[in-house]
Amino acid sequence: MSKNIVVTYGSFDLFHIGHLRLLARAKQYGDTLIVFVSSDEFTQQKGKQCLLPYEQRAEMISGCRYVDKVFTEHCWEQKIENIETLNVSTFVMGDDWQGKFDFLKTYCDVVYLPRTSSISSTFVKQSMRIIANIN
Amino acid sequence: MSKNIVVTYGSFDLFHIGHLRLLARAKQYGDTLIVFVSSDEFTQQKGKQCLLPYEQRAEMISGCRYVDKVFTEHCWEQKIENIETLNVSTFVMGDDWQGKFDFLKTYCDVVYLPRTSSISSTFVKQSMRIIANIN
Repeated sequence: MSKNIVVTYGSFDLFHIGHLRLLARAKQYGDTLIVFVSSDEFTQQKGKQCLLPYEQRAEMISGCRYVDKVFTEHCWEQKIENIETLNVSTFVMGDDWQGKFDFLKTYCDVVYLPRTSSISSTFVKQSMRIIANIN
Repeated sequence: MSKNIVVTYGSFDLFHIGHLRLLARAKQYGDTLIVFVSSDEFTQQKGKQCLLPYEQRAEMISGCRYVDKVFTEHCWEQKIENIETLNVSTFVMGDDWQGKFDFLKTYCDVVYLPRTSSISSTFVKQSMRIIANIN
């Protein structure tokens, strides 16, 4: 039987427990978890500003025990090609993207996972600002 | 031949690339890497303020592919007992602690590893404050 391959995509700035839990749950959908980390250029295109450069964001994801391979996400359009080339069985995203990738259901299973409530890079940034002002 | 066991200790607040690289290098000294994460009470005793509670700091360390086991650091005094009980061969710390744990050389090898230059929780906090003010 061939291995079930799972993919997910994201910027993964300031690797936090919300990311970790999402990756742990994503891995449960298959044998191999491949993560596409957004390039700095693509992150900017998405209107986001990352604190950490691509190399460090990718290194942090590679250090996660649930992740088997890390590639780069350069643009919105690459997903279908990635799914076909890598023979992906399940595409996973956080449910803040609910419905947005249903067009991929022609190619593989599409799963939206609940985000860890109130944990996000934005939350971490806000908490840090409070701490930074205290110290 | 028995397995070589490596230990390290720390708060590991806001898990970052400096932590990741230190754990990767620590693992190279043996077969099993055990990390003692400081409890919230002990962190306060050390005069540090963590953004994240013990449970989340420990969960992040458990998610790291180089780490085999996570325990709790409750006090300064437990190290010798840990080393003897766990049959530790190498004690590893960042070189910001250079010389401070030489008294453990009676019990096992003691290694101080270079910290990733200019990467620390303090650096991350400062960068976050800048970003928080921009956004």
